[in-house]
Amino acid sequence: MIPGPIEFEPAVLAALGAPTTGHLAPSFIEAFGQALERMRQVFLCPEGQPFVIAGSGTLAMDSAGANLVEPGDKALVVNTGYFSGRFAALLERYGAQVAQVRAAPGGCPSLGEVEQALAADKYKLVTVTQVDTSTGVLADVAGVARLARQHGALCVVDGVCSVAGEELRMTEWGVDVALTASQKAIGVPPGLALLVAGPRALEAFKGRKTPVGNYYADWNNWLPVMQAYEARKLAYFATPPVNLVFALNVSLGLILAEGMEARFARHAYLSAACKAGLAALGLGQVPLSPELAANTMSAPRFPPGVDGPDFLARAAAAGVTLAGGLHPAIRTEYFRIGHMGAVSQGDILAVIGAVESALAGCGYEFTPGAGVAATMKALEV
Amino acid sequence: MIPGPIEFEPAVLAALGAPTTGHLAPSFIEAFGQALERMRQVFLCPEGQPFVIAGSGTLAMDSAGANLVEPGDKALVVNTGYFSGRFAALLERYGAQVAQVRAAPGGCPSLGEVEQALAADKYKLVTVTQVDTSTGVLADVAGVARLARQHGALCVVDGVCSVAGEELRMTEWGVDVALTASQKAIGVPPGLALLVAGPRALEAFKGRKTPVGNYYADWNNWLPVMQAYEARKLAYFATPPVNLVFALNVSLGLILAEGMEARFARHAYLSAACKAGLAALGLGQVPLSPELAANTMSAPRFPPGVDGPDFLARAAAAGVTLAGGLHPAIRTEYFRIGHMGAVSQGDILAVIGAVESALAGCGYEFTPGAGVAATMKALEV
Repeated sequence: MIPGPIEFEPAVLAALGAPTTGHLAPSFIEAFGQALERMRQVFLCPEGQPFVIAGSGTLAMDSAGANLVEPGDKALVVNTGYFSGRFAALLERYGAQVAQVRAAPGGCPSLGEVEQALAADKYKLVTVTQVDTSTGVLADVAGVARLARQHGALCVVDGVCSVAGEELRMTEWGVDVALTASQKAIGVPPGLALLVAGPRALEAFKGRKTPVGNYYADWNNWLPVMQAYEARKLAYFATPPVNLVFALNVSLGLILAEGMEARFARHAYLSAACKAGLAALGLGQVPLSPELAANTMSAPRFPPGVDGPDFLARAAAAGVTLAGGLHPAIRTEYFRIGHMGAVSQGDILAVIGAVESALAGCGYEFTPGAGVAATMKALEV
Repeated sequence: MIPGPIEFEPAVLAALGAPTTGHLAPSFIEAFGQALERMRQVFLCPEGQPFVIAGSGTLAMDSAGANLVEPGDKALVVNTGYFSGRFAALLERYGAQVAQVRAAPGGCPSLGEVEQALAADKYKLVTVTQVDTSTGVLADVAGVARLARQHGALCVVDGVCSVAGEELRMTEWGVDVALTASQKAIGVPPGLALLVAGPRALEAFKGRKTPVGNYYADWNNWLPVMQAYEARKLAYFATPPVNLVFALNVSLGLILAEGMEARFARHAYLSAACKAGLAALGLGQVPLSPELAANTMSAPRFPPGVDGPDFLARAAAAGVTLAGGLHPAIRTEYFRIGHMGAVSQGDILAVIGAVESALAGCGYEFTPGAGVAATMKALEV
């Protein structure tokens, strides 16, 4: 129950472990083509260009930065935690002049602050982390995208901890690039960088005056390959990660069978039940207010007197793996729970039960069963 | 029987399809640490630093180029085909001034030509493709590495189609970087970029005066992670491709159980048997002389009157997938057979049998069974 790698569906693991076909085998061309079509549906971007590349989520971020930034371009980073800082660092690597609007750990810059920054200078692009895995903070992507468009900037969304879990409507909201990693709510073991670029992003890319700084991530190498596979034709740049692509296609199929609206609703519903259980145990959250809290994960604060490593070991002994803190400023003060992808009511009860067991073992005083009872009550809504 | 992705051992596929652990789970830390130790043994580089990163073989090439090249550095590419040209292109992307020694398709620049080029200018690094997958040409890596060292240049070996199949002795030969992709003779489905950097390469990297041009591939990000996992400690940069790393550790274990010397000998033995069968059928080879022919693959020329697509379809109908040509200058004139990794005497007979069936179907005249008989005779040596 960590915020990625998550638990994967047996059908996805079976596809991953099946004998590998050639990368030009008809069955693989069909699966890759179908996966690309399904990417558009999951990202709610019918006119977008999907990219599926071997790499981590950081490669997806790097790919957006390297292909959209030319030396001297100005970029604005809406900083909500560790991974926003990473975006700033990589944009600078490709020559961007980066400005950041910041917030305290657990906070998110307001739309007013973002608008003020956008009004003060002319930016080529704005990045925003929809859910920062380090804090569990959910940013208002629709609002940031609207402001970016008003000010003539591209909106790039780091959706590593959000795509296929949090509500994200690329076309409707005017998001120009959204990206993620396979091991989060997309539901495929780690190893795929996934990205969809909208028309304005592709136009900016095609209008570049300088070569892309990163050879491997250069869309000039990948665009013909993605277009060919989607047209069910042969193409080659680098050998695609065949097994992971088969697994991706299976998982995207399961996601679309559930339906995006039902999926967003399920994540919100189970997240609320998890947070209700944690609140009933007296645990605060890193996000500074409930509307800033993600639906794909929770970041509860340890109560006073509870030692982090001891707590995590006791939760593991109770059968549930939880993650420690990641934000440098508050690393030891909180832990993290992932509840995205193939997650169920039973999983949420298991995690709250393990939290109760661990808290009790750490000597924290509370009414036994209060957490799971509050979770059940929230689930009945 | 294409030159990658190859057929994989069932134990490797089982590890790939097993439920994913967290990237900080004790069992994963142990497997990753052990895989890194085993990389050193397979690359025959006890003092090297292994890198295991989510990506394709091209990422491994890009990683070597981006981390070793600073703008204005001079690089010499020993060009034996398509993939040597790719190395030149990516080195230039990072600001290198690239010179190339070239050969006709199927040829390899002589050591004399390499030495002449090295004497004519001062190069920071020399790249050589041990086996160019586009031509099946085997370069004299030991010779190039010796010359590079004599002239104070780093020797970078693209071993994508060779590592764990062709004889490659990094330390003994003075190779500074060797790299490969998982889906070749290393025997793991595609998705891992694998690289070992020797002490001189790391020293050159540490002495850089400019930032690495590629953020994702920057060894500054990965070095602490590789060192931590090998020390069985926690570290994080990007989520490692957990399932692929488990699979890699299984495959490296199988490779070392066979033993590197036995493995090199098996590849040479089976390659000779394959080539004997092809010769008995009257098929020439793309490599211009037998000593230039790889042991991990064969690149036979179509006999006059045999149509490539028709031949490949007939071979597939006979149960064996073969690959078409890849070198732009001669693409339609030849086909490619991979015989690396988990390949056996039976596989070689199956491939020669399929070649016979396809040739017969294409109307080519030969003594039926001559190919498999010659293969059997070569196997009995």
